[in-house]
Amino acid sequence: MARSKKSAPPARWKKLGTRPLAETRVFTLNAERWRHPGRGTEREFAVLDAPDWVNVLALTPEGALVLVRQFRFGTGDFSLEIPGGMVDRGEKPLVAGGRELLEETGFAGARARVLGTVSGNPAILNNRCHFVLVEDAVRTAATAWDHDEEIEIVTAPVAKVLAWARAGRIVHPLVLNALFLFEPRWAEIQRRPSRRRKA
Amino acid sequence: MARSKKSAPPARWKKLGTRPLAETRVFTLNAERWRHPGRGTEREFAVLDAPDWVNVLALTPEGALVLVRQFRFGTGDFSLEIPGGMVDRGEKPLVAGGRELLEETGFAGARARVLGTVSGNPAILNNRCHFVLVEDAVRTAATAWDHDEEIEIVTAPVAKVLAWARAGRIVHPLVLNALFLFEPRWAEIQRRPSRRRKA
Repeated sequence: MARSKKSAPPARWKKLGTRPLAETRVFTLNAERWRHPGRGTEREFAVLDAPDWVNVLALTPEGALVLVRQFRFGTGDFSLEIPGGMVDRGEKPLVAGGRELLEETGFAGARARVLGTVSGNPAILNNRCHFVLVEDAVRTAATAWDHDEEIEIVTAPVAKVLAWARAGRIVHPLVLNALFLFEPRWAEIQRRPSRRRKA
Repeated sequence: MARSKKSAPPARWKKLGTRPLAETRVFTLNAERWRHPGRGTEREFAVLDAPDWVNVLALTPEGALVLVRQFRFGTGDFSLEIPGGMVDRGEKPLVAGGRELLEETGFAGARARVLGTVSGNPAILNNRCHFVLVEDAVRTAATAWDHDEEIEIVTAPVAKVLAWARAGRIVHPLVLNALFLFEPRWAEIQRRPSRRRKA
């Protein structure tokens, strides 16, 4: 890693306090007061306090991913995504992933593991998003949607989903993160002897 | 695309109105009232009204990416990212990308193009984030940071940045999106005859 000569390391600000500005069902908007240690200046920044999120890559035995298509109120449009939602207080990401997958799609699988974790958005959100991979996902139950949820369930081969992602047909940044982290794992899964025999 | 037999297409809700809840320097939090066309039910959803964002992949002649490391108030921690910021009203994403790159790092380049565009987050944000690729990026000017900005400028080879991204060292979802979209372009750039001669 090459550091520019003129470039000094940034300072770690100190949080002085938090003042709630507005509360909604999915996050609380806070004004946080921070002090710069060197300059001594104090400033307020807007931060959304939200529970962690989870998104699930559910791979079917046929090598397809389980997708959900729903109307989103931020964009005011339909969005093609992978299943996901909020992690409940005290819930493990793996458990939350399995729960959201089952509730939204009726699918369940095996060998669940966390592929990675990112920030919701380090500039404005204080939460994290976990990505869970589930293999051998099959439909085992009826869906159990939350109030207001209305979800079209779609399955498509991994290669097609990756092509859609890079062509702009998937626009949810966290869903794209899940696919980015999954892509090298998918290459590994395809090289497994059991899969080669099937192919 | 295989649609489940039991899965009906979701409805397009109709927006009835917008009520501001709080305003900050980077977004306005609105309560939006929506009606489901079939059920006739009305519900309020929280939506952040924000200007579009831009993030810039600045590739140096040596095949390195220009990164910025700064303190982020959402996570309350340092974050390794690519340069970026808000698109000004009426500004083209390409212009905004070049401006943010120059202001934050002093770098400028050639052959700027938009690699792709995603939603800020379709569930809670109404804006988009554009990803701009700039080649032959070299330092041409001093930085011109906004108030409160304090940025460490770092360059690192593309392969290393991609490895950091997949290893969890980069946690900004939009920066990871930019790298996801850039990865196949980088493979193309490396196959160019001019590059092969250099190698």
